[in-house]
Amino acid sequence: MPALATVPKSRIPFCPACGSPTKLAVPDGDEKMRAVCSSCGRVHYENPKMVVGCLVEHDNKVLLCRRKIEPAYGLWTLPAGYLEVGESAAEGASRETLEEACADVEIVSPFAQLDIPLIGQSYIIFRARMKTPSFSPGSESLECELFALDDIPFDSLAFSSIIVTLRMYIEDVKAGNIKFHYCTINKRIGAGPSDLRSFDIDNHLAV
Amino acid sequence: MPALATVPKSRIPFCPACGSPTKLAVPDGDEKMRAVCSSCGRVHYENPKMVVGCLVEHDNKVLLCRRKIEPAYGLWTLPAGYLEVGESAAEGASRETLEEACADVEIVSPFAQLDIPLIGQSYIIFRARMKTPSFSPGSESLECELFALDDIPFDSLAFSSIIVTLRMYIEDVKAGNIKFHYCTINKRIGAGPSDLRSFDIDNHLAV
Repeated sequence: MPALATVPKSRIPFCPACGSPTKLAVPDGDEKMRAVCSSCGRVHYENPKMVVGCLVEHDNKVLLCRRKIEPAYGLWTLPAGYLEVGESAAEGASRETLEEACADVEIVSPFAQLDIPLIGQSYIIFRARMKTPSFSPGSESLECELFALDDIPFDSLAFSSIIVTLRMYIEDVKAGNIKFHYCTINKRIGAGPSDLRSFDIDNHLAV
Repeated sequence: MPALATVPKSRIPFCPACGSPTKLAVPDGDEKMRAVCSSCGRVHYENPKMVVGCLVEHDNKVLLCRRKIEPAYGLWTLPAGYLEVGESAAEGASRETLEEACADVEIVSPFAQLDIPLIGQSYIIFRARMKTPSFSPGSESLECELFALDDIPFDSLAFSSIIVTLRMYIEDVKAGNIKFHYCTINKRIGAGPSDLRSFDIDNHLAV
């Protein structure tokens, strides 16, 4: 096979601080290629993003939202979204639940951290309860519904992180011992991006 | 008091995608001011960064590193640093421990998540053990040392997150029940940035 000229491309092509083009280089004392500004010399790092969400429990059921936005339009998920600067993960998870399911919740306990290194995301999921049992679809949801654990639509879930979270939760509830879980979700080699079931769970640690 | 023209300043003044200046605006369907590119229209969000680290246990002691870099030069800390895109939190915590303490560790369990909304950081700390009992200062450490829990230098710790982590750990060890902790660290109003002891712990939840 002929050698292809694979020039790595920076995902931060311009310096956010001064607007000049960046170049990929290994800074002094570092070991990895970084986007370094060709003018002011600033080094720009890429860090994973935290996705925070709630597993809202009510009458032995959990609250799911059917997505009104891409990706995964029409599929079911837990209310969750990107954590913002200035809020804690618990605050962010509550905010997302209010936005997506119009449910005002109180955080009960941390339930899971699921890292997805391939896409630079880390899911942080909390157990939560509604302050008053009231919910309705927010602007990003088609509908919201409470599901008994045996009725969760596993064939119509939006993301691997949600599949894994709900599987672990059902197992814990059935065992009568709800724990905190940490794990990594790795896509199997050759799996397509929309192939939700082609993943492995690594480093699963439960407390 | 005269009204001061307080124009909020974007922390992303130039578009990382095209290099044009950004302006602060509330995008359609959003509620917050964002850095929006004046040329390509892209919206740039600010997300908290994850700091990952290890609480390395050995013979009822824990491994601390004395910092050879600013901030907090000369003060003691757990080996920890920013999580990188492409690695899991557990991998990042192990990597930082190898870099800062030359210790090759195995992750035992998640121990704590500590959010610091004020500075947009979230600490993720794992319990870990050395594969072989060997450590030495890496390039960012002056020295590394195992401390018995009663000898931890609380007056010379580098960060509030480290103080809180070690306090919770000592409490758990003394109670004979090591849990997973989630909490938020909020600086008290009026506290200076270097005033390590002027903080409150909110939303402490333990599993």
